[in-house]
Amino acid sequence: MALIVQKFGGSSVQDAEGIKRVAKRIVDTRRAGNDVVVVVSAMGDTTDELLDLAHEVVPTLPTGGRELDMLLTAGERISMALLAMAIKSLGAEALSFTGSQAGMLTDAQHGQAKIVSVTPGRVKDAVDQGAIAIVAGFAGFNKVSGDITTLGRGGSDTTAVALAAALHAEVCEIYTDVDGVFTADPRMVPRAQKLDLVTSEEMLELAAGGAKVLHIRSVEYARRHGVRLHVRSSFASKPGTIIAETREGEAVEDAIITGVAADLSEAKVTVAGVPDVPGKAASIFKVVAQAKGNVDMIVQNVSTIETGRTDISFTLPKEDAAVVIQALQDARDELEFEAIHHDDQIGKIALVGGGMRTNVGVSATFFEALSDNGINLEMISTSEIRISVVTRADQVADAVRVIHSAFGLDADDEAVIYAGTGR
Amino acid sequence: MALIVQKFGGSSVQDAEGIKRVAKRIVDTRRAGNDVVVVVSAMGDTTDELLDLAHEVVPTLPTGGRELDMLLTAGERISMALLAMAIKSLGAEALSFTGSQAGMLTDAQHGQAKIVSVTPGRVKDAVDQGAIAIVAGFAGFNKVSGDITTLGRGGSDTTAVALAAALHAEVCEIYTDVDGVFTADPRMVPRAQKLDLVTSEEMLELAAGGAKVLHIRSVEYARRHGVRLHVRSSFASKPGTIIAETREGEAVEDAIITGVAADLSEAKVTVAGVPDVPGKAASIFKVVAQAKGNVDMIVQNVSTIETGRTDISFTLPKEDAAVVIQALQDARDELEFEAIHHDDQIGKIALVGGGMRTNVGVSATFFEALSDNGINLEMISTSEIRISVVTRADQVADAVRVIHSAFGLDADDEAVIYAGTGR
Repeated sequence: MALIVQKFGGSSVQDAEGIKRVAKRIVDTRRAGNDVVVVVSAMGDTTDELLDLAHEVVPTLPTGGRELDMLLTAGERISMALLAMAIKSLGAEALSFTGSQAGMLTDAQHGQAKIVSVTPGRVKDAVDQGAIAIVAGFAGFNKVSGDITTLGRGGSDTTAVALAAALHAEVCEIYTDVDGVFTADPRMVPRAQKLDLVTSEEMLELAAGGAKVLHIRSVEYARRHGVRLHVRSSFASKPGTIIAETREGEAVEDAIITGVAADLSEAKVTVAGVPDVPGKAASIFKVVAQAKGNVDMIVQNVSTIETGRTDISFTLPKEDAAVVIQALQDARDELEFEAIHHDDQIGKIALVGGGMRTNVGVSATFFEALSDNGINLEMISTSEIRISVVTRADQVADAVRVIHSAFGLDADDEAVIYAGTGR
Repeated sequence: MALIVQKFGGSSVQDAEGIKRVAKRIVDTRRAGNDVVVVVSAMGDTTDELLDLAHEVVPTLPTGGRELDMLLTAGERISMALLAMAIKSLGAEALSFTGSQAGMLTDAQHGQAKIVSVTPGRVKDAVDQGAIAIVAGFAGFNKVSGDITTLGRGGSDTTAVALAAALHAEVCEIYTDVDGVFTADPRMVPRAQKLDLVTSEEMLELAAGGAKVLHIRSVEYARRHGVRLHVRSSFASKPGTIIAETREGEAVEDAIITGVAADLSEAKVTVAGVPDVPGKAASIFKVVAQAKGNVDMIVQNVSTIETGRTDISFTLPKEDAAVVIQALQDARDELEFEAIHHDDQIGKIALVGGGMRTNVGVSATFFEALSDNGINLEMISTSEIRISVVTRADQVADAVRVIHSAFGLDADDEAVIYAGTGR
């Protein structure tokens, strides 16, 4: 009997109807002859509502923290219990498990805990006894302190992948509100096409580039542990996108461009007038790391000989910017920069495709399409299978559409879009 | 340093403002030089909202059950985490604990678990380290199954009393939306008076008679373990009502009548035409007990010699009636009754007072006051310190006011009433 891990995000279980629909889908999978372990997020906007409540109680609430984790895990507790009830009412057996009960052991970093080990003994017992096991996404447990933790952004996807790895599941199905991974965000590019298969490497680049369908951390975990992912819609029954290690059987030459990702969640920080001496950049990024800033792109200007100074720009999540800038200001005496500039009206576009570098003309087409349409670039960064650029936020949607067309990715029909987003 | 256990019901923490107000009160108690352990219920109507959601998902939801306990404890998890955050923002240290973390070990009866042992090691450690410990009311943990349980009705009060007993607290303060225990429900009798002291025996009779300020189970637990209770308002700072084992220093003769309680939550079931042979009543109540009916008052008519048959009436919580009647019907062949009548339009009134029996004239005054005001009695039951009667539901408020006046309990001023009710 094959074991399938199914993960349902908040948009799939946003109300009682959603829970019933998901329950039916799970029971169908069970009755088709599979063992099933389910990971579920909090219903709809529950997590945001709990956060709002916390901010009402403490307007200056620090991020992370033991009590915030205690609070937020209440959301998953509600959805998993309701889902278990719904499954039982359909005549199948179901048991819900907290992160602690499911053996999701983590370190003690509240709000962004890292998985230390996964020991899903109770989950396995439940499945062995014929029950469907429902596990709280996002939630972990630190054995040393005995405290509840949360995995942070993308946590539920990571829970699902970690359980799939520990239980040697055949596949980890990530149910979401879109049909799979697309050549671009269908909300931005109506003629985006669903991909049947992407490699985990491409998926990593797409996720890093802003594709929200899967969190980068879960893709990394899946890749490292050889977990096969299947991203599909919880509103339809057709197959979605398989994320596999390689494109077995596919002609690599045909699949140069995977897709275009966009990301409006980052800000740009420029540290201007930094002395151009060895080790200065390292000092800056040490300060940024200590402030827990999640740096993405980095660009350093060539220094001018007259001043012996250079500018270093980097992007990072908007919500990290204030703390990072404060930390840099505090270290001004050591870093010896002249000024710090902060810009939160930027957007990032990434073109991803296997074998891109070896295929002449890709960058030419890319930059030409942008410049022909008057889109100005502020930062450029490339990898083996990706080109990323930073532009003005209000030009991102145009840029994505232009590139999507330039590489012939437009479909004949418009994609179907469902409501909401998952966690 | 004295240890004080403080319990706050749902009405005290119904929104962010309530949580902040309660947090301030707790911190004040701590800064006055006390160790503080807090037990908190779910915010406002959270429990009912979660139950509604469960019924939306599964309309035919059975009561109790592992998953329902998982669901409902999410409510306390939210309030306790928010309360801990609010306390920390006021500069005091606070840690919240689930029922499991607080060592509230119970049996496996989901939805109405009984406490097996209380081992609050982590709570004690937190307090010893100067922190305020916040414990989830209502929640327990079954060590054998590793599952979360709930204590059922009045659960949070019981959590508070059980912790107070295990931690040898000086006092267990039950904060509610009224100023204390009154001679009658101030909503029904505006001139009801607050009592400064009641004995636990009287409190038990008042609670059994329908006074909702404390659940009978917590009063029993407090009495058995010698826990001193203080029922007081979370909206005012004045002292409430002390519930102590004896009326030390008070002249017993002066305190004949404690108060009048009313209860509209019960239904009356009459098993008519039961053969008047020994053991028949026992058989009936065995069936009722097996159906988990919580029988309160019992009255048996004198049998008529002609028929050799009798009627047995009893009251029980309205929500228990359907199951009990079905169980009795199923056992009709054995019980040989003629018919079952069900009446959910009844109300119960109880007059409670120490030394009532030895004081002539109490019953006379009681029955006279009711008959003078045209209130018809359907059942009567008495104990050492209580007279209870059943009447029509729509006559209960009149009956309570009439009795309250007849025994000279009316105050000069009307009582202050706050909003909401606790759990």
